[in-house]
Amino acid sequence: MSYSGYWGKSLEFLKKNEIEVGTLIKVQADVKYSGIVMPRYEHSDDRHIVLKLKNGYNIGLEIEKISQIEIESRPPTKKETNLQPHADPKLPKILLISTGGTIASRIDYRTGGVTPALTAAELNASVPELSKIANIDTEVLFSEYSENLLPEHWTKIAEKLDSCSRSEYKGIIVAHGTDTMQYTAAALSFSLSGFPKPVALVGSQRSSDRPSSDAALNLISAARFLVKTDATGVFVVMHNSTSDDEIACHWGTRVRKNHTSKRNAFQTVGGMPAFIVKKENIEKNPSFNPLKKAYTPKINFNSKVLLMKYYPGLDPILVDNAISTGYKAIIFEGTGLGHVGKVMYDSIQHAKRKGLFVGMTSQCIDGMVRMTVYDSGRDLLSLGVIPLGNMVPETALVKAMWALANTKDVNEMEKVMTENVAQEISD
Amino acid sequence: MSYSGYWGKSLEFLKKNEIEVGTLIKVQADVKYSGIVMPRYEHSDDRHIVLKLKNGYNIGLEIEKISQIEIESRPPTKKETNLQPHADPKLPKILLISTGGTIASRIDYRTGGVTPALTAAELNASVPELSKIANIDTEVLFSEYSENLLPEHWTKIAEKLDSCSRSEYKGIIVAHGTDTMQYTAAALSFSLSGFPKPVALVGSQRSSDRPSSDAALNLISAARFLVKTDATGVFVVMHNSTSDDEIACHWGTRVRKNHTSKRNAFQTVGGMPAFIVKKENIEKNPSFNPLKKAYTPKINFNSKVLLMKYYPGLDPILVDNAISTGYKAIIFEGTGLGHVGKVMYDSIQHAKRKGLFVGMTSQCIDGMVRMTVYDSGRDLLSLGVIPLGNMVPETALVKAMWALANTKDVNEMEKVMTENVAQEISD
Repeated sequence: MSYSGYWGKSLEFLKKNEIEVGTLIKVQADVKYSGIVMPRYEHSDDRHIVLKLKNGYNIGLEIEKISQIEIESRPPTKKETNLQPHADPKLPKILLISTGGTIASRIDYRTGGVTPALTAAELNASVPELSKIANIDTEVLFSEYSENLLPEHWTKIAEKLDSCSRSEYKGIIVAHGTDTMQYTAAALSFSLSGFPKPVALVGSQRSSDRPSSDAALNLISAARFLVKTDATGVFVVMHNSTSDDEIACHWGTRVRKNHTSKRNAFQTVGGMPAFIVKKENIEKNPSFNPLKKAYTPKINFNSKVLLMKYYPGLDPILVDNAISTGYKAIIFEGTGLGHVGKVMYDSIQHAKRKGLFVGMTSQCIDGMVRMTVYDSGRDLLSLGVIPLGNMVPETALVKAMWALANTKDVNEMEKVMTENVAQEISD
Repeated sequence: MSYSGYWGKSLEFLKKNEIEVGTLIKVQADVKYSGIVMPRYEHSDDRHIVLKLKNGYNIGLEIEKISQIEIESRPPTKKETNLQPHADPKLPKILLISTGGTIASRIDYRTGGVTPALTAAELNASVPELSKIANIDTEVLFSEYSENLLPEHWTKIAEKLDSCSRSEYKGIIVAHGTDTMQYTAAALSFSLSGFPKPVALVGSQRSSDRPSSDAALNLISAARFLVKTDATGVFVVMHNSTSDDEIACHWGTRVRKNHTSKRNAFQTVGGMPAFIVKKENIEKNPSFNPLKKAYTPKINFNSKVLLMKYYPGLDPILVDNAISTGYKAIIFEGTGLGHVGKVMYDSIQHAKRKGLFVGMTSQCIDGMVRMTVYDSGRDLLSLGVIPLGNMVPETALVKAMWALANTKDVNEMEKVMTENVAQEISD
């Protein structure tokens, strides 16, 4: 019997009613509901049970308000059906690493559980087209929604990829939640600079039990891209439009999630995606001209980097506090061409005296930082603030965490931060 | 003689060579330069002088590297030429308030100074089309690049506008730097909710001494909009394309500067602009349906609001420090549909125990926050985090500063923050 994530009163309630996770029940609360009992996360309260309704939405029901309960069907007993297709020796091999997120939950959603369990058998059973593109091995690295991934998870993913750098795999898919996918993509781009194979981070904006799920097509397109391309490096592969006609492959350091829910939420900032997958064709962006680099993995991150958006009324004490706390670098999201108000100058001076790296990006997100146009910018340059071109602020943050861990002093860090390591400065 | 902003060695250098601000000089440094000596800002160093070159760019020259200097022409003696056109009694009246920024500097740029001096005479002399649209009174409120404007400046602008609420002006133009224009637009929208006249914030992305300046057309279009529209409230009026064919009027709470340098940097988030000015026509967005509200000015801001973007590796101690420092509200820029990692939960609980308001927006910028879809969101709801719909994060910050100053407790603040006060939730 599984009661994953339930405790206290809600656990007692389930046990008393002989209901485990995965059971389809009908309950009377404010109105009648019918749905599958879902597992919960460790921080959840003990007053609710969560049902996945037939329309795909989850609702939390307060157990005290449930007046009647009826079991419609028990979860299926787990049989290890052998759905693994016979490998076709003519096809290339791909490794699919799962880290969690909506995409990894999709298969289990149908049985009522959200714990990712992305075995090759389950994957091929749900997306049969994949087995015609490549022979896919799978491995579950961890099972987290991506808002819970930390720099130490980036390290684990990078180490796993590094271990495959000389493998027989043509390319590697990393199934990942969309919430922080751009941060992981940047982290892998920097730490595995020059990686000799193509890597596709793939997620989905809607779980597969909704009619509009983008999971299968994103996976299929990523597999096609990895098999056909001669490009190497880290890409984010997601819908390019709200329909199913185009899938974009975004360069991992230039991509941003720019919508909370649309299937085409991911966009290349300040340009077009590196590749577009249209059914079986891969169209290359003519201006895509990647840096040629030797593979020199540096898989370390130091998270003592503050990302600070400047806004009217920002109290410089927040920066001073971060310095006292041991922060070693600050990335400003300045205004316009890369400015902050004069109220910040003393704190910036303080940071520089303490030996911190201070870099400037723009909260406009798109466009170059140019700090020589106005006095405000020139003042900041003279204080030692380093302009970071058109680096996406979140990418600059990740790069700074990486540079901080892999350089010996602030001078070397300044040099690394302004060099183009992985396409993060696009012109 | 004016040496505005110069001190120490650079002041000495100018005096010795009998050069004041506005003088056209030719100097030999690394190469030969010819340009007008520009004033400097108070925080500048004393080792450089700034020249505006003929191509419109400013450069800083280190005085120690100047080997030769030649005066080409002295600044024109200031004559108060009466350029004020005769008022045409058939035209409506507009008030133009200047707060600084590139747009307010443009006229003086031609004489070599950047201190805004936007008199009606100078304005009409430089943009003669204006006098055919309206009789324009002007007033200089202050002369700051907008990165230096603070909530106390918002108060001053709002008080000035409030004093005109029953005036004869058909509408009011606020000339403003583009860097923080969206923050000021939001601040005026909330503090002057229901204002009975249209207000247009106007800036320029390029100063008028560059061939591609957008200043004149933005001003002309704002004047046309104010004269013709029956809409009221606060708008940002800026180029809608890179050419001169369309000027957009963005609702003040839904607008964002999304490019560092393009003329059409400002965009309405998650929709189309409220109005488009095409030459003399004003096109209304059919879905523009403003709230009808009585005019109830509440001109107070409390800046003890923290805007915090969640990112992997964010140390919750930054939130704890802000709480200790006396912050009263937190606006998260969460990931995706409105999430933060579990590592933040304790700090959020701490904030709620201390009575802080904690609101959630998304760093995706576009799209609704929906915190009922995943466990992460539901956990945050149960901790007391308030979802803020599709409010632009910077708008949510300004609204929280305003709500904090105008409500008596966190419950009232939660109510105000989730009510649509000035179109900030467009759904």
